[in-house]
Amino acid sequence: MRAGVERRGATESMRTADLHTEATVVDGLQINNWSPDVLRQLRKGGIHGVNATCAVWEGPTETLRLIGDWCQLQAAHPDLLRLVTSSEQIREAKASGHVGVLLGFQNTSPFADDYRMVEVFHRLGVRIAQLTYNNQNLVGGACYEPVDSGLTRFGKVIVAEMNRVGMLVDLSHVGNRTCLEAIAASSGPVAITHSNPTWFVDSPRNKPDEVIEALTARGGVIGACLYPNVIGGSAATLDGFCTMVARLCDQVGAEHVALGSDCTQDWGQDYVAYLRDGRWRPTDSTNPPQWPQWPSWFTGPADFPHVTDGLQAVGLSDAEVTGILGGNWLRLFDDVFPGTRSES
Amino acid sequence: MRAGVERRGATESMRTADLHTEATVVDGLQINNWSPDVLRQLRKGGIHGVNATCAVWEGPTETLRLIGDWCQLQAAHPDLLRLVTSSEQIREAKASGHVGVLLGFQNTSPFADDYRMVEVFHRLGVRIAQLTYNNQNLVGGACYEPVDSGLTRFGKVIVAEMNRVGMLVDLSHVGNRTCLEAIAASSGPVAITHSNPTWFVDSPRNKPDEVIEALTARGGVIGACLYPNVIGGSAATLDGFCTMVARLCDQVGAEHVALGSDCTQDWGQDYVAYLRDGRWRPTDSTNPPQWPQWPSWFTGPADFPHVTDGLQAVGLSDAEVTGILGGNWLRLFDDVFPGTRSES
Repeated sequence: MRAGVERRGATESMRTADLHTEATVVDGLQINNWSPDVLRQLRKGGIHGVNATCAVWEGPTETLRLIGDWCQLQAAHPDLLRLVTSSEQIREAKASGHVGVLLGFQNTSPFADDYRMVEVFHRLGVRIAQLTYNNQNLVGGACYEPVDSGLTRFGKVIVAEMNRVGMLVDLSHVGNRTCLEAIAASSGPVAITHSNPTWFVDSPRNKPDEVIEALTARGGVIGACLYPNVIGGSAATLDGFCTMVARLCDQVGAEHVALGSDCTQDWGQDYVAYLRDGRWRPTDSTNPPQWPQWPSWFTGPADFPHVTDGLQAVGLSDAEVTGILGGNWLRLFDDVFPGTRSES
Repeated sequence: MRAGVERRGATESMRTADLHTEATVVDGLQINNWSPDVLRQLRKGGIHGVNATCAVWEGPTETLRLIGDWCQLQAAHPDLLRLVTSSEQIREAKASGHVGVLLGFQNTSPFADDYRMVEVFHRLGVRIAQLTYNNQNLVGGACYEPVDSGLTRFGKVIVAEMNRVGMLVDLSHVGNRTCLEAIAASSGPVAITHSNPTWFVDSPRNKPDEVIEALTARGGVIGACLYPNVIGGSAATLDGFCTMVARLCDQVGAEHVALGSDCTQDWGQDYVAYLRDGRWRPTDSTNPPQWPQWPSWFTGPADFPHVTDGLQAVGLSDAEVTGILGGNWLRLFDDVFPGTRSES
């Protein structure tokens, strides 16, 4: 067990409400069916910034429409949300009572086969892109494929272009070989926005030590994930999850650990079938995919403070918790988003 | 040396002109800048049917336009070309003095991430699709990638769907591991429309014995390719090429050997840069790709009879030459194009 657990008692910690006021809280990934109601749930949960998935399987044209949807949502609810592109703007969103929405991709499908689309979507405000989503693509291998090719020739171009324009590489659903090659190829730190260590739950969606340690050794951040399938199902306990986070802090340093809840608020069953099957295979109508049940202590964005409670309860310091709640994402964004344009 | 070379003399063979009249001549792949003039060159070369590339890097929408271009070309030149979808229609095109054009893809990019696009493009007349073009894609690995993943989960769905609707799988620019896995996955025979054995020229675009023998053992056909880079450059001799073809016949059986010239007639230098670099990397403007020089004995579609001469000169029988010139493609088309729709 980590030293911190014995080092200090819960009485020495700030109350959760105070911590959420003190900290700038950033969720490394949510893939909700976004609406004013969902945004209010984030506000209730004390979340100031979020990497909001705006493309999973979609190609360039479809993604333009999804970004259009975000523009429309912002225009209709200027009191609720701000589309943001920097840590500074997330802090401003917090100050003005908005949810700061950072547009992110869970796939490089919006770039299609064109490296120039990285800059195009960067200009549209996209700041995070996962290299692959479950399946192999033009860029590399993915976590659910039987074989991982590693980063392709095009993948190397894409990573270099993301480095250049200042777009964060996300490796959450990426295959382990491609993760390692992308970490090595990237000129700056990269992220796993929403995965856990395989030593916690052995899932293709979680990451072995080799990947996590390579990532954090180069300044990257891993967001511990609350999605039921990667925490061991709905029976997982808050204490078990937070103990995992604390051990991960001991393993790689608390400044490299954050949260990526993977909230899937307000979607119907059709959307989980889309996430699993995309358009790449027919959905088995006799046994269609179902959303997993979330644990009682985390059923959506409004439950974020429970996690804060839990992180304090396992003995993490206020400074560590503040970093995990958002400070570490903000530092990484500051490292990555300026880009290295002068190199090109 | 093959027995045939000693078995018979050239005097026993039909004259080339007669053979081109007797045989139905099919070229396994041409990627010309198609025009009435180019089609006339095919007619001059005695070519009755051709797998004409109508997509290389293009996605679904772009490919629809390219198919539209073909419809327009046919409408404007009803005397010259017929879009065909079967061996029978190729024979009819021969009888009526047309070039029978079979629409083919050199990539699965027109299917994007949607397995249903296989049937959609089949309905539009596409009958051949290469799984990958030089670079890894959603379906599998490619010949110029450092690592070949093999056939992906989506790749297995695509091969099954091609089998179902009756679309020929082409493995020419595909990686060797993906070739072997696609041959095994396919319920029917598949093709290498335009590659040579690596024992002839050791190029990533050519195929090792393991791949060629697995393909032909399952009823497939390999089209020997005349593209300069896969025959050893413009200094390659007609005799050397045809001796390779004859040896390949000895290796796998003459009924599994055909021709796929890879003619690139009438393109400017910009198109070779597009073929090499697509949109996946910037073209090096200081050293842009150039078309290779073709050998003097094969500079375009009109030179097809020279190859027929050469095949006879190395001692292949009239029956063997007739098969290589087109009969073997026609038999494979008859095997594959009916599809296995009842399975779905």
